[in-house]
Amino acid sequence: MFRHVVMFTWTADATEEQKAEVSKRLSELPGVIPELKSYQIGPDAGINEGNFDFAVVADFDSQDDYLVYRDHPVHRAVVAESIAPIAATRAAVQYAV
Amino acid sequence: MFRHVVMFTWTADATEEQKAEVSKRLSELPGVIPELKSYQIGPDAGINEGNFDFAVVADFDSQDDYLVYRDHPVHRAVVAESIAPIAATRAAVQYAV
Repeated sequence: MFRHVVMFTWTADATEEQKAEVSKRLSELPGVIPELKSYQIGPDAGINEGNFDFAVVADFDSQDDYLVYRDHPVHRAVVAESIAPIAATRAAVQYAV
Repeated sequence: MFRHVVMFTWTADATEEQKAEVSKRLSELPGVIPELKSYQIGPDAGINEGNFDFAVVADFDSQDDYLVYRDHPVHRAVVAESIAPIAATRAAVQYAV
């Protein structure tokens, strides 16, 4: 299996509506990109200080399938239109599991 | 289910031996902390520029079980002795899945 993990912090002026739009649009991707075998997204639970604000963990059968997701136009549209405008910082890792 | 995700970048002078020691010691934790239902760790695959160096995704039945892991003395020893000396930056999220 191949896993993609990404986290974001949001800008201070990001609205709840904008954050909800990210979750809504990302949650639609498994129906559009069949290479997504598992897709777990969500906001930080608020337990620990200094955390990032939002996490995405996506599982694929292979690295090639991850690349299909990474470069898929529907995914790119969500990133460009809904994530990039409110993302302050981003941290990502892809790894074989 | 409750998920803990953390990523690290390593310092420029971190050795391969030090990085391998982190993986080795973390991989022993599921045998010590039964609250860990799934534990997938690994170094970044090197596909994308600007990524972090190492990821940990840990799954628990509940937030309380995550706290057992977070505060477990064997885990804390790995963090203090093997991770902290070579960690340059850290990004973490805990979320309900």
